[in-house]
Amino acid sequence: MTTAAPSGDFQAKLARYADLLVRTGVNLQPGGRVRIAAPVEATELTRLTARAAYRAGATDVRVVYTDPHLDLALYEDGTDDAVTFLPDWFARERESMVADGYAMISIVGEDPSLLAGVNPERVAARSKAQAQALKAVSEAIGGMHVNWTVAAIATPAWAARVYPQLSEAEAVARLWDDIFTTTRVNHDDPVAAWAAHTAQLRRLGELLNAKQYAAVHLTSGLGTDLTVGLAANHVWMGGGETAKNGIYAVPNLPTDEVFTAPHRDRVDGWAVASKPLSVRGQLVEGIRVRFEQGRAIEVTATRGQDTLERLIATDDGAAHLGEIALVPASAPVAQTGTLFLNTLFDENAASHIALGRCYPTNVVGGEDDATLTAAGGNDSLIHVDWMIGTPDMDVDGITAAGEREPLMRSGEWVI
Amino acid sequence: MTTAAPSGDFQAKLARYADLLVRTGVNLQPGGRVRIAAPVEATELTRLTARAAYRAGATDVRVVYTDPHLDLALYEDGTDDAVTFLPDWFARERESMVADGYAMISIVGEDPSLLAGVNPERVAARSKAQAQALKAVSEAIGGMHVNWTVAAIATPAWAARVYPQLSEAEAVARLWDDIFTTTRVNHDDPVAAWAAHTAQLRRLGELLNAKQYAAVHLTSGLGTDLTVGLAANHVWMGGGETAKNGIYAVPNLPTDEVFTAPHRDRVDGWAVASKPLSVRGQLVEGIRVRFEQGRAIEVTATRGQDTLERLIATDDGAAHLGEIALVPASAPVAQTGTLFLNTLFDENAASHIALGRCYPTNVVGGEDDATLTAAGGNDSLIHVDWMIGTPDMDVDGITAAGEREPLMRSGEWVI
Ligand SMILES: [Zn+2]
Ligand SMILES: [Zn+2]
Ligand SMILES: [Zn+2]
Ligand SMILES: [Zn+2]
Repeated sequence: MTTAAPSGDFQAKLARYADLLVRTGVNLQPGGRVRIAAPVEATELTRLTARAAYRAGATDVRVVYTDPHLDLALYEDGTDDAVTFLPDWFARERESMVADGYAMISIVGEDPSLLAGVNPERVAARSKAQAQALKAVSEAIGGMHVNWTVAAIATPAWAARVYPQLSEAEAVARLWDDIFTTTRVNHDDPVAAWAAHTAQLRRLGELLNAKQYAAVHLTSGLGTDLTVGLAANHVWMGGGETAKNGIYAVPNLPTDEVFTAPHRDRVDGWAVASKPLSVRGQLVEGIRVRFEQGRAIEVTATRGQDTLERLIATDDGAAHLGEIALVPASAPVAQTGTLFLNTLFDENAASHIALGRCYPTNVVGGEDDATLTAAGGNDSLIHVDWMIGTPDMDVDGITAAGEREPLMRSGEWVI
Repeated sequence: MTTAAPSGDFQAKLARYADLLVRTGVNLQPGGRVRIAAPVEATELTRLTARAAYRAGATDVRVVYTDPHLDLALYEDGTDDAVTFLPDWFARERESMVADGYAMISIVGEDPSLLAGVNPERVAARSKAQAQALKAVSEAIGGMHVNWTVAAIATPAWAARVYPQLSEAEAVARLWDDIFTTTRVNHDDPVAAWAAHTAQLRRLGELLNAKQYAAVHLTSGLGTDLTVGLAANHVWMGGGETAKNGIYAVPNLPTDEVFTAPHRDRVDGWAVASKPLSVRGQLVEGIRVRFEQGRAIEVTATRGQDTLERLIATDDGAAHLGEIALVPASAPVAQTGTLFLNTLFDENAASHIALGRCYPTNVVGGEDDATLTAAGGNDSLIHVDWMIGTPDMDVDGITAAGEREPLMRSGEWVI
């Protein structure tokens, strides 16, 4: 942290960040179109990002400003009808954008506790209705039909949750510094730094893909002892992805994970969370889950167990895994020592699993539903990442013949 | 003006204002749906308005935050293709809302000079493309297919233009005070005050409708000497309107005008502006226009003449009138003595005319295009109000038999 008030230095970094979203995040091509979704607090970054897109030759920039306080108003003052109502054209504009090949930039920065005081059943009901309405869009984005990226801004409300001991201005400045560090905006040439970083993640993915392990086995001092069977013809990915439109994009800024699709029915043992999970405005802590033949059959949490159980009850696939991701303890996010209360960051501080839907791109031919299901890929309305990695975590690959090969020792890659 | 910083008193007024938009502005019914369009600076009022709508029993509240700085980015950094490009689904969401009967609340507060430095041809080209795409929506709103209202917030940029001599905080507080005064939010019971006010405007409209004047004749010391022939079966309106869905709404907060549709081809004489006109980010001053058989044939301005000429060249109907509105010099907006640089207010400080499209509701059966055209109603992509009223203005009604009857003397109603 350098200064509490926005300085000229800050403005320069913000402009570099906007440029990074456009050039590295979605890798926008001349003549391309882009949708930017951003919280109302992000007007400054959004305007810079729109400018960067126009300068890169964008033909269209569509901005949608979001405001979670409107959701709060609905949950607190809306009728039951209002909570579940969605107009039949709710998803149509986004579906049109996917069809028209719009790149998608999402800027996030929610107060993770904004909805903490509202009835969780209302939140769950609306989340489910929205997820159903947006299923086609989510599948298209998960399947990389278009180039997309997600990045964050430091909003005052979020910063206050992350750094409750600091003043608002100091907390915001500190969180911005974390964001600029972990997204490599502090490098002289962030775009070049990202090119080198994604090449390294690609190398790890290629090594693992050549192995085609039957499973990985994860252990930690917290009690994780979990065998995660992998989907047939699974693909490990990391860094960026080439979208169906041929454009290489980096979907998450930051990203330090290498991840693939578990086999829906071949997960066994204990998974113990190494960080709190922020889900639907609630903080869930002390999670311990036992899996048997892929299904979560014992679910406990020291706080927010209701929310976790409600999440897992969303649909059948919500009790199965859709992602296993390996992240070294030396990753920049882990090095900040910050608990961000935001998956975009926290998932890059630790190896993790996700309940729910898998990414079709993590299975060869997974775009085809039947192929994905036959390979063991999981389907659900939800996809919720959940950290189990620790600095003492060991990870082995298990070959089809049952042999073990070390992948990580004491939280670090050994391949 | 009472205080520069938002006080508890300010918060109470803002909540009353939000309530007024919902109850008087669109008169939202239980189970109704509403769209709120608001600048990103208006989050506080927008959230309060959403809450007021939910408390009134709204089934759906859709908020669209707007940001004119994104337009500025486009005009400054976009390619020519980007300036004129609109996706083919551009208007579809709004068309769906009109079809579904959404009430429409628009909150305005733009910096009237934001686009002053950009190429006016770019602005004109985009404005025209958007107006064409939104023609069906504009017609539906103009024809009161749904209940809608427009009101303002005091943004820092707008306040700075209105009160350049004050500090930003003082200018914003002063402009808020103007808004609260002219929208009767300073009354103990704003909703009741509006019921009395709209009843008075309705009474004037009914008197004028019973007369069915052939024309009105306006004169002012500035040099206005204008005979405005009226459309056949014209309807004077004022205060609120009953929308096609049966709901009585007040489309403008504030509103002090009584207005109707001129006959497209029966306007003759000189119209001299009594206030600057803010159009497409440019200020046009010292306007003098001579009409002959309805058409503007001499057009001069001491500043911004180019912009005015470009506006009038939009299409054939842009050189003809679509509105004549009578406003007394004693109206609250006139009494503030403020030049708001915003039509919503300035048109309620003075009698005015509008270049371009007429309101179909100002002609009996005007919803039908052929009926409207046969009656002399004007059509255009534009509708731009333009003030000619002064405290010394006299207005006469001219009967079909050619007799004159006084309507206003020295700026005040005499009927
Ligand atoms: Zn992940
Ligand atoms: Zn994930
Ligand atoms: Zn008017
Ligand atoms: Zn008008």
